[in-house]
Amino acid sequence: MTDHIVRAFTDELAELNSTVSRMGGLVEKALAGALASVSRRDADLARTVIAGDPEIDELQRSVERQIMRLLALRQPMARDLRQTLSALKLAGDLERIGDLAKNIAKRAIIIIEHEPAAVTRSIDRMGKLAANLLKQVLDAFASHAVGEAVSVWMQDEELDAHYNSLFRELLTYMMEDPRQIGPGAHLLFIAKNLERIGDHCTNLSEVVHFLETGEEIVGTRPKVDSLPASAQSHIPPED
Amino acid sequence: MTDHIVRAFTDELAELNSTVSRMGGLVEKALAGALASVSRRDADLARTVIAGDPEIDELQRSVERQIMRLLALRQPMARDLRQTLSALKLAGDLERIGDLAKNIAKRAIIIIEHEPAAVTRSIDRMGKLAANLLKQVLDAFASHAVGEAVSVWMQDEELDAHYNSLFRELLTYMMEDPRQIGPGAHLLFIAKNLERIGDHCTNLSEVVHFLETGEEIVGTRPKVDSLPASAQSHIPPED
Repeated sequence: MTDHIVRAFTDELAELNSTVSRMGGLVEKALAGALASVSRRDADLARTVIAGDPEIDELQRSVERQIMRLLALRQPMARDLRQTLSALKLAGDLERIGDLAKNIAKRAIIIIEHEPAAVTRSIDRMGKLAANLLKQVLDAFASHAVGEAVSVWMQDEELDAHYNSLFRELLTYMMEDPRQIGPGAHLLFIAKNLERIGDHCTNLSEVVHFLETGEEIVGTRPKVDSLPASAQSHIPPED
Repeated sequence: MTDHIVRAFTDELAELNSTVSRMGGLVEKALAGALASVSRRDADLARTVIAGDPEIDELQRSVERQIMRLLALRQPMARDLRQTLSALKLAGDLERIGDLAKNIAKRAIIIIEHEPAAVTRSIDRMGKLAANLLKQVLDAFASHAVGEAVSVWMQDEELDAHYNSLFRELLTYMMEDPRQIGPGAHLLFIAKNLERIGDHCTNLSEVVHFLETGEEIVGTRPKVDSLPASAQSHIPPED
């Protein structure tokens, strides 16, 4: 292989990584906007988040096209191949986080039409935790930080605990005031969306780990088993 | 390339497709089991579904390993490359449907501990529709039937309509009897899981279409826009 071809390949891989990073930036912004639209009751901001989603989807398609071209023309091996396929996975998870943020924004618009709910503070706390996981794993990707990726992987458990307590809080709130069942259901789904975002951050951290080390994260996360022991329990099961 | 190498590649691709098909079969069985565990209130069956999920996950990892090897050793081009990458996507969506089926089974166990809910018949209807979409798209994959893939893609709209009506039905049911808010919340998530399974079937149909034609499905599905016009509306937004 001539030097020229090698350099071109490195350039293409750098371009691929830069598209993934750009996607990450947009997804981070979408999540921050969605969470702010809930806590500040800002329907215009929610609409901005919704309107921004097609750009994220388009970037994912662009990543897929770049990868098809790279594989067909460059036929990368070893670490280059790993890097190429990792970008495919990263883009997939980021697109899904973008979708979940958009869904939160759509639900924000509905909730805003109702009275302020007391539980939005808990949602806000959980949202900040999810946004922080996303930031950390994107940083880990950008700076090749394996340790930070593992840390995100471990922290998802905390988000799951938040979700379980929020689930119970929301059910109580709906039982106390049946008029809140409608908005409460949307808040339940917002909480679930945040929990899913945590799962996607876990996926992202696994990809970053595999990308940097060529190996899967070893060890078991101390995942709370959530099948309830009694009929009174309302703890929802994890996927 | 010698005939020998070409034949080996064809064999490997066939093996990859057979792993994906086997995954499809297991996922179909998991979904059927999860739905039956809800409608027949069968906790043992639900536990069987949950216990079967690791096998599906392992098959996905096997698909990924096969693809890494194929790309590294065979460096496939054109339709072969498309087929290889499509298998990666198919396995990803199937794994996710398996997860959603497992989640339905976990919620079934919780719901069974409560009184029978009147709405399980609606869940059953929606579940049959989702299972049918999955069957159709797996058939389309096995028989290279582009038309059938497009048909699945169009039918997802019907599942969305079911979901919206079930969402409203469940809220009414929770409002009428606050003791049903706990199980009602789990039924809401089961309905949402079925709606997500429909989305994954749509993804699968897009991959089958791309695999067979090299092109994306053209045209817009008449997707119901679900942002509600009034504050009274409880129609949930789609992703």
